[in-house]
Amino acid sequence: MTESARLFRQRLDEVAAAAESTLDGLLSPRPLAGEVERPARLLEAMRYAALGGGKRLRPFLVVESARLFDVEGVGVLRAAAALEMVHCYSLVHDDLPAMDDDDLRRGRPTAHKAFDEATAILAGDGLLTYAFDVLADEATHADPRVRADLVLGLARGAGLGGMVGGQALDLEAETSRDPHTPAAVMTLQAMKTGALLLYAVEAGARLGEAKPAERAALTAYGRALGACFQVADDILDAEGDEAALGKRAGKDAGRNKATLVAALGLEAARERRDTLAIEAIEALAPFGARAQVLAEAARFTAARRS
Amino acid sequence: MTESARLFRQRLDEVAAAAESTLDGLLSPRPLAGEVERPARLLEAMRYAALGGGKRLRPFLVVESARLFDVEGVGVLRAAAALEMVHCYSLVHDDLPAMDDDDLRRGRPTAHKAFDEATAILAGDGLLTYAFDVLADEATHADPRVRADLVLGLARGAGLGGMVGGQALDLEAETSRDPHTPAAVMTLQAMKTGALLLYAVEAGARLGEAKPAERAALTAYGRALGACFQVADDILDAEGDEAALGKRAGKDAGRNKATLVAALGLEAARERRDTLAIEAIEALAPFGARAQVLAEAARFTAARRS
Repeated sequence: MTESARLFRQRLDEVAAAAESTLDGLLSPRPLAGEVERPARLLEAMRYAALGGGKRLRPFLVVESARLFDVEGVGVLRAAAALEMVHCYSLVHDDLPAMDDDDLRRGRPTAHKAFDEATAILAGDGLLTYAFDVLADEATHADPRVRADLVLGLARGAGLGGMVGGQALDLEAETSRDPHTPAAVMTLQAMKTGALLLYAVEAGARLGEAKPAERAALTAYGRALGACFQVADDILDAEGDEAALGKRAGKDAGRNKATLVAALGLEAARERRDTLAIEAIEALAPFGARAQVLAEAARFTAARRS
Repeated sequence: MTESARLFRQRLDEVAAAAESTLDGLLSPRPLAGEVERPARLLEAMRYAALGGGKRLRPFLVVESARLFDVEGVGVLRAAAALEMVHCYSLVHDDLPAMDDDDLRRGRPTAHKAFDEATAILAGDGLLTYAFDVLADEATHADPRVRADLVLGLARGAGLGGMVGGQALDLEAETSRDPHTPAAVMTLQAMKTGALLLYAVEAGARLGEAKPAERAALTAYGRALGACFQVADDILDAEGDEAALGKRAGKDAGRNKATLVAALGLEAARERRDTLAIEAIEALAPFGARAQVLAEAARFTAARRS
C-alpha cells in the first residue's frame, strides 16, 4: 500500500467515526426547540437506518473537500451527517417491498424487516426531513447564505431532477423489455447516485467558500467520481458474490436493470470505470498535493471489491 | 352569511387559485439549474398528488398571516406552495397500503391506486424534497436568513418531533388495545396535524418579519387553530358519511384510532372544538380588525361540515 493510500484509509476511518458520532448526537431522544417529542420507536428506526453502517463515503467527500480550504469542525460534520441521512433514507425507501424488495442491507435485515413497513417509510421520511433541519441550523454555518445554499443544493440533488428522479427512471427501466442504451443508463446513474456524490464535494466547496475555478474543479471531480462509483458498482454486482456484498448479488441481470455492464459489456465497463477514475484525479490538478486524499478516493472507488 | 364570512370565503378561494397556479408552475417539466431531467411519470404523479384538490387551508394561513404585515406576492405564494407540497406528500404516504391503506382521497383514487405503490412513495419523497428547494431559493425571499429560518421551521414541524412523529404515534396507537388518554391524543394531534398548521402562520410571521409580540400572538392562534382543526376532523369522522367526505368514514372508530371523540365523547369533543376556536380568535386581538379573515378561518374550522 502506498503512503497516500494509507493516508486515505486513515482519513476514511476517521471521518466515518466522526460522522457516526455526529449522527448519534443528532438522533438523540431530546427534542429540539419547536419539536413536541421524539417518539421512541420511530427514533429507534431512524437510528437503525443511519448508524453503524457503510463506508461513509459521502461524509468523507464533504469533509475532505472542505479541508482543501482549511475548513473543518462541527459545522462540516453536521453537513456531512445531513447528507448521509439523505443517503440512508434513500436506502430505506429503495429496499421497501414496493421498490427493490430487499431483505438484507450491509449484512443486516433492512429497516422494514427489522421494524415494519410503515415505520420504515416514516423513518425514511424523518431522515430526509431532518437533513434539512440540520443544514438550516446556524450550528452548521454562521452565514445564512451558506446554509440556504447547502439546503438548495441538497434538495436539488436529492429531488425529482436528481436522486428521486433517478430511482423512478430505474424502476421504469426494470419493467421495460428493451435493452437500455449507454446514454440512458448514464443519465439515470448521474441522477440516482451521481447527484448526491456531486453534492458531497460541492457542499465542501460551499463550506470552504471556494473560488469559482476551485468550485469548477471540484464539480468536475465529483461528476467523474460519481459516474466511476456507479459503474464500479454495476461491475461488482455482475461479478459479485453474496457474502462479500451483504446483499443479494446477481439480481441486476435477472431484472433488466439499467446497468452499464448490460449496456456496454463487462470489459468496456471496466475500461470506462478506469477512465473515469483518471478523469476524476486529473480534475484535482489545481489543488496539487493537497488533494492527494481525494485522488486516492477515486483510485479506491475504481479498485474496490465490495 | 356575515360580511366577514363572505370575505373569508373569497380570500380562501383566491389563495386556493393562486396556490394552484404556483404549484402548477413549480411542477413544470423544465429542469432547474443543477437538475438533470424531470422524469415524466414521476412528475405526473407529483402533479396528481399536489394539484386540483383541497381547500388549501395551509397556503391560506401563510398568505393571510403574511398579509397582516403587508407582505404579499410571489415569495409568499412560493412559501405557501412549499408547505402545501409537504402536506400533500404526507397524504400520499399516509394513504399507502402499509399505512392507512386508503383507496380514495378527495373523491379520487389515491396516488398509489392511480399510479403504483413505488411511484407513490417516490412522488411523496419528491414533493417533500422539493418543498425545501422552493424555500431555500432566493425567489422566495431576498434575505437568506429568512429562507434558512423558513427551512428550519418547516423541517422541525414536519419531522420526527412533528408531523412524521405524530403519524408514527398514530400508527402505534392503532395497534394498541388500550383506550387513549385525552392528553396522549392531544400530543399526537399537536404533532400530526397541529405542527404544520402552526408552521403556516409562523411562516407568515417570518415572511412579514413580525415583532416578537406579534409572532407570539400568531403562535397562540396557530396552536389553538391546529387543535381545533383536528378535533373538528375527529367529530366529522364520527358523524360523517362517506359521500360528503370522499373517503371511507367511520373507519377511525373501527381501528382504535387515537381520536378526541373516543377519548372524551362526542359532546365534550364538540365543546372543546368550540372553545379552541374562541381561543384562536382571542389570540388575534393585538391585530384588531386586520385579522378578521384569520378569525373567520377559526370559525370556519369549527363549523365545517366536510
